[in-house]
Amino acid sequence: MKKLKRSARLVEMTEFLLSRPHTLIPLTTFADRYGAAKSSISEDLAIIKEVFEEGSIGVLHTLAGAAGGVKFMPKLHKEDALSFIQNFCRQLEQSDRLLPGGYLYMSDLLGQPAIMNEVGKIFATAFADRDIDVIMTVETKGIPLAYATGAQLNLPVVLVRRDHQVTEGSAVSINYVSGSHKSLHTMTLSRRALKEKSRVLIVDDFMKAGGTIKGMMDLLAEFDATVAGVGVLLESGTVDSDERLLTDYISLAKLTAVDSKTKMIEAAPGNYFND
Amino acid sequence: MKKLKRSARLVEMTEFLLSRPHTLIPLTTFADRYGAAKSSISEDLAIIKEVFEEGSIGVLHTLAGAAGGVKFMPKLHKEDALSFIQNFCRQLEQSDRLLPGGYLYMSDLLGQPAIMNEVGKIFATAFADRDIDVIMTVETKGIPLAYATGAQLNLPVVLVRRDHQVTEGSAVSINYVSGSHKSLHTMTLSRRALKEKSRVLIVDDFMKAGGTIKGMMDLLAEFDATVAGVGVLLESGTVDSDERLLTDYISLAKLTAVDSKTKMIEAAPGNYFND
Repeated sequence: MKKLKRSARLVEMTEFLLSRPHTLIPLTTFADRYGAAKSSISEDLAIIKEVFEEGSIGVLHTLAGAAGGVKFMPKLHKEDALSFIQNFCRQLEQSDRLLPGGYLYMSDLLGQPAIMNEVGKIFATAFADRDIDVIMTVETKGIPLAYATGAQLNLPVVLVRRDHQVTEGSAVSINYVSGSHKSLHTMTLSRRALKEKSRVLIVDDFMKAGGTIKGMMDLLAEFDATVAGVGVLLESGTVDSDERLLTDYISLAKLTAVDSKTKMIEAAPGNYFND
Repeated sequence: MKKLKRSARLVEMTEFLLSRPHTLIPLTTFADRYGAAKSSISEDLAIIKEVFEEGSIGVLHTLAGAAGGVKFMPKLHKEDALSFIQNFCRQLEQSDRLLPGGYLYMSDLLGQPAIMNEVGKIFATAFADRDIDVIMTVETKGIPLAYATGAQLNLPVVLVRRDHQVTEGSAVSINYVSGSHKSLHTMTLSRRALKEKSRVLIVDDFMKAGGTIKGMMDLLAEFDATVAGVGVLLESGTVDSDERLLTDYISLAKLTAVDSKTKMIEAAPGNYFND
């Protein structure tokens, strides 16, 4: 037990909560930790709660009663998420991102942990109220997004592989059709990676017709698991609606036009920002 | 500008610093932000500094003078790192991790963002004083480690791929020999992913003889870049020293024995904990 002055206690409690998102912490934990009365702890939490909410950091959810406590849920105000995504879109529109075949280079953006953490916070905000056991993505570029989201929601990450790996043990493989090129691919998931009946949030960096995500959904069916939500950072807005393989997803940004000849790229906020 | 009571200001400053590791923040930023005198800000920082150091959270480094300010550097006390790694080793020793061929299933551990963040903090502590521009890893399982480390050190992550990808633009490829099986592999890095003369911290989840990491070093040479350090979560301790391809690395844990017949696994803290 530490006897701290109130100012030091506030600093420590703030760090304690921030590093344990979506975790219920009984008030007695704090009371015991600091040898303080529950009423003092409650006053401290009220101060933290106000700062977190005003600062677009998150909400402190208080549960009363014997099994009660406090839970920090990272939540970004929608206008802050929007201004972050608008800035992300401006960066996407830099013409030197255009690669042969109309592909867009975005590894520099995906390579910034601070950007990934912000995206993780937005997904954690968007899916905060869903009942989720695990986050799933397929290698490779969705991985940092999945971990950033998992960190904010306090959930494990399950990784679908393109090939069967010796380090994964026995696995379930499926074939899927990549929507845009109608080409056949394989994805595989370790048998022990996912419990039956898990509720799974699928996240990925990019979605065109949705073939890869549809593949993950097919894989989930093999595990008797269900889809709790789908979140993509960037979707292609140039897909015909009858080609689109899924409709129920959240996108944070949308590629609205890509012209290889004029090297023009246009991006806009995704459907998360529709009202 | 927000006029906050001191208690609220402490909460906000704590969050502000924690979310901006290895970033120099001028005192005037805080003074302007809160409309407070620099002397009050300095007092607040002294409180935060003490809590962070006692709580094994990190250090607040203060730079005096006109270009001065405060920088938060995540640092985990060595005894806390050790007790975390000892617990990690106990989990590794669960006999049901053994896969055919003597491989170890550890995707469940690597799939926990909280574990990855802790490992990231240990790497950030170990490499805090090196001059590093970028973190590098090769797909797939080292990726969450690289991002966790990059987040703590405020550095970007560069991802080496096994195959050339259309979304990476022109790339440099090399062949390398995987030490343990003497088999030939390819790795490839996008031309624009890494600036010339970059100082690179290489991280990976597992190292046996070190062939994969040696491959990344060869790739760095192609970019005229230099190795600022090598960190691996787990090394195999069953490699003969004359087979080992590199000697200058930090390991957090070590597999000291794996017996497929008796299903016995033994793991111990790595060379980071040698004195």
